[in-house]
Amino acid sequence: MKKIYLDHVATNPLHPEVLDAMLPYFKEHYGNPLSIYEPGMKAREAIENARESAAALINAKPKEIIFTASGAESNNFALKGIAYAGQGKGKHIIVSRIEHHSILNTARFLEKAGFAVTYLPVDKNGAVNPVDVDKAITKETILISIIHASPEIGTIEPVAEIGQIARENGIIFHTDAVSSVGNIPVDVQSLNADLLSFAAHQFYGPKGAAALYVKEGIRIVPLIYGGIQEGGRRAGTENVPAIVGMGKAAELAKRDMQKRIDHISPLRDKLIGNALKTDKVLLTGHPEKRLPNHASFVVEYIEGEAMLLLLAAKGIYSASGSACSSKALKASPVLISIGVPAHLAQGSVVFTLGEETTEDDINYFNETFPQIISRLREISPYAKGWEGMEGSACTAQK
Amino acid sequence: MKKIYLDHVATNPLHPEVLDAMLPYFKEHYGNPLSIYEPGMKAREAIENARESAAALINAKPKEIIFTASGAESNNFALKGIAYAGQGKGKHIIVSRIEHHSILNTARFLEKAGFAVTYLPVDKNGAVNPVDVDKAITKETILISIIHASPEIGTIEPVAEIGQIARENGIIFHTDAVSSVGNIPVDVQSLNADLLSFAAHQFYGPKGAAALYVKEGIRIVPLIYGGIQEGGRRAGTENVPAIVGMGKAAELAKRDMQKRIDHISPLRDKLIGNALKTDKVLLTGHPEKRLPNHASFVVEYIEGEAMLLLLAAKGIYSASGSACSSKALKASPVLISIGVPAHLAQGSVVFTLGEETTEDDINYFNETFPQIISRLREISPYAKGWEGMEGSACTAQK
Repeated sequence: MKKIYLDHVATNPLHPEVLDAMLPYFKEHYGNPLSIYEPGMKAREAIENARESAAALINAKPKEIIFTASGAESNNFALKGIAYAGQGKGKHIIVSRIEHHSILNTARFLEKAGFAVTYLPVDKNGAVNPVDVDKAITKETILISIIHASPEIGTIEPVAEIGQIARENGIIFHTDAVSSVGNIPVDVQSLNADLLSFAAHQFYGPKGAAALYVKEGIRIVPLIYGGIQEGGRRAGTENVPAIVGMGKAAELAKRDMQKRIDHISPLRDKLIGNALKTDKVLLTGHPEKRLPNHASFVVEYIEGEAMLLLLAAKGIYSASGSACSSKALKASPVLISIGVPAHLAQGSVVFTLGEETTEDDINYFNETFPQIISRLREISPYAKGWEGMEGSACTAQK
Repeated sequence: MKKIYLDHVATNPLHPEVLDAMLPYFKEHYGNPLSIYEPGMKAREAIENARESAAALINAKPKEIIFTASGAESNNFALKGIAYAGQGKGKHIIVSRIEHHSILNTARFLEKAGFAVTYLPVDKNGAVNPVDVDKAITKETILISIIHASPEIGTIEPVAEIGQIARENGIIFHTDAVSSVGNIPVDVQSLNADLLSFAAHQFYGPKGAAALYVKEGIRIVPLIYGGIQEGGRRAGTENVPAIVGMGKAAELAKRDMQKRIDHISPLRDKLIGNALKTDKVLLTGHPEKRLPNHASFVVEYIEGEAMLLLLAAKGIYSASGSACSSKALKASPVLISIGVPAHLAQGSVVFTLGEETTEDDINYFNETFPQIISRLREISPYAKGWEGMEGSACTAQK
């Protein structure tokens, strides 16, 4: 059976060159980078090389890169670190309603700790309006954090404009760029970003390696205290092989980005074009300003999880934006925020392509997906209407 | 030239079987463990198997294991997570003066956040007196955190007694067991531990994988918010290969622990016996109750860093307990806490053996070490007395 991986937004296969780059740091260069003998020095040198590559990918300086272990850690670090560092100045933070859980749940934690948080709405395409950001700013605002691109609906936010507004108001601006860095050009200078989160496994690097860009001169309180790693800003023995892998993946992403986009984007368009021919299948997110590998839909009368299972049975691996499929069993806040009714949000599916996706794969997908929709609608009690929804397998577990 | 790695407390070489276990999770099973298709399910299954092995190593239940990315993260998580969860009950925490920086610096952060922290003294061997713990308890005390074994002086603390006192007083007890788990038997039940930190790279597992044991029923506030990984208690896409490696390393450690101790311990004794024959070389830490692979000394009239460099030139890789060698350029708080004068603390060296250390290695070491001490004393201005110390390369950079 064909196996077609269309869930690159969840994670990516490791690039073989990346694994090759990592292996020596599992074997001969296993030393602790803080030590002053050879195996340790080799490790330290490798970390600094990786820092240069990671910085180059986003047009930052190497010393502005703090390695972490995940995008979630970077996001937690950014929000809490800037909140604690700036609380003497003010205690108001602005985020959007379509942030990742690692931003939203951290914001809720900070609310409990005495901070005020504004959650900005988005339009039907999932875009934040910079005017809304401007209006939300108060004298107490110390941080604005807006996602660069949504992993769930693919929309790319007007981050440069928002960064500009933040800068004019002397407010620190963070963007969660986990889904975009390595996949589209990201430049911290032109985005006016003071902090930016990114993760290696989103661009064919390893899990367990991520980074937070912190613009030179900005003070941040550590999330993880301890030793003097990462300039005293993030403690813990460095995960050397993973950091090396992140550096290599960053290097490859910078080199191959345009080639990858030119390959993936037409295939993605073909997938979207075909899917929308099926009755009551709607594209979610922005029709143009979206990640080039990203296609997301809501399919009426069907639950996302059922689609995923049948697709998987046909060798097509994909995700549902509905949190039901990821076990949280609630309608996706992102889809609700763009005005998708709760029952329809259950019918969410997300397909994200990668550099190894072929024309053949998409042809096979385009043949299979409408068949699965038809089959599910035949057996779905909801195809006649949404009245019975509450008793569904998904909602019953709430 | 011979290469002898005697810094196993800093990190360990990866066991070849561990790397073999990890490799498939870089290659075929690369899926996100939250996904419902095959590559993801394989990853999830592997994580749960690793959780069983990690739990078995410390006699815990699998669901009591939360995977993290480092011992430092586990320690930060334990302290902040219990402090925030328990602050309604009280705001007093007890730690010792010889905790790792990831505990001490987190404790200082919590002091700024309004918690009161007692830093308990230790005796000349570095041991905490359980009576002191008992005396320090107030009605406000919500957490006691005492290190299981010091990586700097090797002393094993009377953790079971301290845990018992905590339990009798209804106070949560955490122990930082990063240096001990995998190297000596550690049983959370007999230690009366409610929380316990450990890290894979301390027992031939990979960097980037660690865990926090949290006894069933204990509420902890997350350090990293986001998705529903680790039961909602630690977000971030799981570092699957590293977690798999931790599981394998735990399995090997459990199986081979006694064999490793029986091999290492006599070699370590031989090293200590020989070193102490040299004039003005003193053992630091407890003479008996210490990690079986651990030898630590202060050498009068010499700086640790100079010894490390000359040892490294002879192919012997070791560490200095003095923070000078690890670039923080202050006398080690651990050595100060056991009563070593600041000038003498600069002459600290730590040798930690591993399963691959041979009798030949130790013979070579025993020959080399006294020669290096003699040579350094010949050229040292301090050999005549400590008066000139302030101008030394190390202290000059303070």
